[in-house]
Amino acid sequence: MTHWVVLSGGLDSTCALALVLVGHDKAYVRTVSFNYGQRHRKEVDAAKRVSDHVGVDHEVRYIGGTLHGSALLSDVEVPHGHYAASTMTQTVVQGRNLLFAASAVALTDPGDTIYFGVHAGDHPVYPDCRPDFWHDLGEAVAGAYEVLIETPFIDKSKADLLGIGVGAGAPVGLTWSCYEGGEQHCGRCGTCVERAEAFYLAGIPDPTFYDDPDYWRQAVR
Amino acid sequence: MTHWVVLSGGLDSTCALALVLVGHDKAYVRTVSFNYGQRHRKEVDAAKRVSDHVGVDHEVRYIGGTLHGSALLSDVEVPHGHYAASTMTQTVVQGRNLLFAASAVALTDPGDTIYFGVHAGDHPVYPDCRPDFWHDLGEAVAGAYEVLIETPFIDKSKADLLGIGVGAGAPVGLTWSCYEGGEQHCGRCGTCVERAEAFYLAGIPDPTFYDDPDYWRQAVR
Repeated sequence: MTHWVVLSGGLDSTCALALVLVGHDKAYVRTVSFNYGQRHRKEVDAAKRVSDHVGVDHEVRYIGGTLHGSALLSDVEVPHGHYAASTMTQTVVQGRNLLFAASAVALTDPGDTIYFGVHAGDHPVYPDCRPDFWHDLGEAVAGAYEVLIETPFIDKSKADLLGIGVGAGAPVGLTWSCYEGGEQHCGRCGTCVERAEAFYLAGIPDPTFYDDPDYWRQAVR
Repeated sequence: MTHWVVLSGGLDSTCALALVLVGHDKAYVRTVSFNYGQRHRKEVDAAKRVSDHVGVDHEVRYIGGTLHGSALLSDVEVPHGHYAASTMTQTVVQGRNLLFAASAVALTDPGDTIYFGVHAGDHPVYPDCRPDFWHDLGEAVAGAYEVLIETPFIDKSKADLLGIGVGAGAPVGLTWSCYEGGEQHCGRCGTCVERAEAFYLAGIPDPTFYDDPDYWRQAVR
């Protein structure tokens, strides 16, 4: 009866992990990060730090044999600006969340549960973050494998889930969001802008060091 | 608008490929085989032979980063006897068809179709071969990725799909079914028994060389 949290190392999945740890003995909670040919390992390193901090087992699995064609994978320039802007569709990876879910299911035994940190703010850009997708997939997986897929933030904004996660003790200062692989967060890419805005909207001091700490204010206007 | 056939190299998917080629220009048909840490490469080699024979592009992708715990993967002895026997549950791989589907979806572009050769004979042993699973998964995939998943044999017996496939020109003599990795089919493992029985029930001469060609008759009694 293991509770698996698919942990990218970003804010959303780290907050999901914190929520799961409120209700469950950490001996039965495990995290998994997927190496799918990302541009850099910053996220996976953050997932390890977060897991170590809260005291749960963490593993990294390679699943990049089939994914293709996205700015997150290739040499296409990472788009800057607000996450919801149309340029962010360059970061869509065909089949990504399905592959994450399938790869996580393959790790499970019947009776296990898998948690994903997807949230309402992802819906406009990423079709595989929408409730219908997770509902249908959840039915398929529960029926065939006796595994539950939970998306506790599916109807929450990023600011709301951040409030919940921080309240539950999520070590958000250890997370990594930036699409660039720099020393610190760039502050200009879509996820940096979304991250800074979420801290602002949640009324939580942002512990992040950004190269360009004020860019997000103009990007979200 | 590519038509992808997930080709194991066995009878079912080879017959599905033949069916797809009846209706579509082979320039728009591609096959993919998955290396998931199987015991041997016989199946994948057969998939290459089949694809070359019918003149479609074939590729092999590694997806074995997360699968675990099955006689198909490990050193557990391959069970002998009829496919439907309870011992065949040792060959169940948690999450396998979901991972196959997800990995195939990751190869696609919107508008593509993916075909799987699952059939009614697989339903008792493999929960992820049942119609409900494929229906729910198909809804999720169509909604999120604009990709259709087709399972033309989902309600057919293996004998029936073999009749359809051979009628459509499937090169069944090039396929490989045996769970063992010998020079020729063993004739005793679950898939060998199922294979020989299907040829018999379909009234099609079996072109296969088996180490033990008559074992299937006692196994299916």
